[in-house]
Amino acid sequence: MPGPPAAVAVTRLAVRRSLTSRRVAQRSLVLAAVSGGADSLALAAALAFEGPRAAYDVGAVIVDHGLQPGSGDVAERAAHQCRELGLTSVEVLRVEVAAGTGQGPEAEAREARYAALEAARVRLGASHVLLAHTRDDQAEQVLLGLARGSGTRSLSGMPRRTATLLRPFLDVTAAETRQACDDQGLAVWNDPHNADDRYLRVRVRRLLDDVEQRIGPGVRAGLARSADLLRADGDTLDELAQSAYGEATASREPDALARESDSRDAVAWVAVAPLADLPTGVRTRVIRLLLLDAGADPAALASPQIGWVDDLVMRWKGQGPFDVPGGLRASREDGRVVVRRAGPLQ
Amino acid sequence: MPGPPAAVAVTRLAVRRSLTSRRVAQRSLVLAAVSGGADSLALAAALAFEGPRAAYDVGAVIVDHGLQPGSGDVAERAAHQCRELGLTSVEVLRVEVAAGTGQGPEAEAREARYAALEAARVRLGASHVLLAHTRDDQAEQVLLGLARGSGTRSLSGMPRRTATLLRPFLDVTAAETRQACDDQGLAVWNDPHNADDRYLRVRVRRLLDDVEQRIGPGVRAGLARSADLLRADGDTLDELAQSAYGEATASREPDALARESDSRDAVAWVAVAPLADLPTGVRTRVIRLLLLDAGADPAALASPQIGWVDDLVMRWKGQGPFDVPGGLRASREDGRVVVRRAGPLQ
Repeated sequence: MPGPPAAVAVTRLAVRRSLTSRRVAQRSLVLAAVSGGADSLALAAALAFEGPRAAYDVGAVIVDHGLQPGSGDVAERAAHQCRELGLTSVEVLRVEVAAGTGQGPEAEAREARYAALEAARVRLGASHVLLAHTRDDQAEQVLLGLARGSGTRSLSGMPRRTATLLRPFLDVTAAETRQACDDQGLAVWNDPHNADDRYLRVRVRRLLDDVEQRIGPGVRAGLARSADLLRADGDTLDELAQSAYGEATASREPDALARESDSRDAVAWVAVAPLADLPTGVRTRVIRLLLLDAGADPAALASPQIGWVDDLVMRWKGQGPFDVPGGLRASREDGRVVVRRAGPLQ
Repeated sequence: MPGPPAAVAVTRLAVRRSLTSRRVAQRSLVLAAVSGGADSLALAAALAFEGPRAAYDVGAVIVDHGLQPGSGDVAERAAHQCRELGLTSVEVLRVEVAAGTGQGPEAEAREARYAALEAARVRLGASHVLLAHTRDDQAEQVLLGLARGSGTRSLSGMPRRTATLLRPFLDVTAAETRQACDDQGLAVWNDPHNADDRYLRVRVRRLLDDVEQRIGPGVRAGLARSADLLRADGDTLDELAQSAYGEATASREPDALARESDSRDAVAWVAVAPLADLPTGVRTRVIRLLLLDAGADPAALASPQIGWVDDLVMRWKGQGPFDVPGGLRASREDGRVVVRRAGPLQ
């Protein structure tokens, strides 16, 4: 008896591995996030096939941003397809995008989408939401991170899993999901935004096509593999920094700073000496934790600010204090790095 | 009094910082590696200006691979320009490229060049050789590493310094070095290879031009900044792995394995238990050190092999042994990962 076509087998295997290797609790409900495009329809089909065989309840949530004319019809058609595939809990979520947060329309839509998915997961009592990001998406993510120049974390792409999200298709190509839809007779919705090169993401996608033509095939695979390696490195360094920061703060006397007359507004500090002994990749992350602990704005905290504070530790010649995004000020005082609120009293 | 033109000032400042921040011993001889192209002529000019002011003896070495007709003339002209600039020890090195090592002509020429520079440095009694790699070169290096998918180390680009090499121009753009040559009336040699897109490097350069047009300017700067951050992370993880491997091997009884009848060909091993406790980014590097210690071929050792051995530690279900490049075989035996020579006796 012949098995399923190759692309269908690839998508099913990916979903099976994702569910079982993560020890997702059996009998729990898992949801596919579906747009109606090839990636997420292939995901819905694979989940409908594999889920029940591995004793999961399976469903789907379709996000309708209402940003394009007819988006409601697209969502309803995708919901219908999901039900036809055998998914049982299927819901369309109408999600308003909070425009004007200053992050740009792509980031705003993404944020609204994730919030809506999480709310739906909790409401429906599901353990996980499966997202259909492919290896192509991962490669684009890494290339964008690289161009921004923001280091290991932003180059490590999207994680395969978090506590409530799974991305089974990070090793599956977009071409394979399209083929899997064809093989299963699934009519795919082609998002017109995917051809609109006002979107950075679309320009990056076209660029990667060129890159593969000019440098050689396998660039997307290479980018995705880099992301995996960098994610492991980033996780390791984050763990080490958490543990070093925990030690640094546990050993400080709780009232040492509060006793001093000028220190009523100090919000966080660490001693310089143990910090200076840490290797650079851990030390700079401990500084980041210190600044976050003091209330710094994570989105605005970039490597230059971390570098200035690191200079207070490693190359101090009396400089500082420095402003830190989030209304803070970092300085070196008596062998410590101290972060205060930058108020008018300063 | 006006200062020098901006591009000239940028190149001089870069050389001054490189010499002083690295505490290169004063009165020592430092050499610029020169091809006659804009990058290295700007380097030679900046070194001729800054070196004597900071009490260094300054010279240049010009590598002639003899691969292009007239290359000897190009080298002699560059040597003449270096002497005119005031560099005192100036030598042309004729370097044969050992073809057919299987690494490809670009890698072979590079290897021959570095070996010749090091030999000249020792012979002339110089402390350091300065290389003219620019931010553009660094960005190309990172993009190549990314596409190969080989993780933190290969993405971290070229280091700013080693024990004997300095790269002062990693924050200087190729456009700035060309401008600096123009400003100083230096006639630049344009290597015809730089326009020959049979070379991967040339294709990558053109690609980066496109990337900056389509994604936005600053991509090269972003890639170079990523390289710096990744290098710090890679160095940190390497240090931690060295120290963990040192502990793992110090604690093993020297003769424990040798006493066993079947272990005469075991070349290196570590106990699984302490290894399994290490975070992934350190553990995989310890495995790499173990395999290198056993004589594995560093050039052929890639992440799949490391992953197989890591599975012996973390996901062992009786699998193995695995072949490792360099005629080795890795297996799990009695709570240890053991690497043996893969001989006919096995």
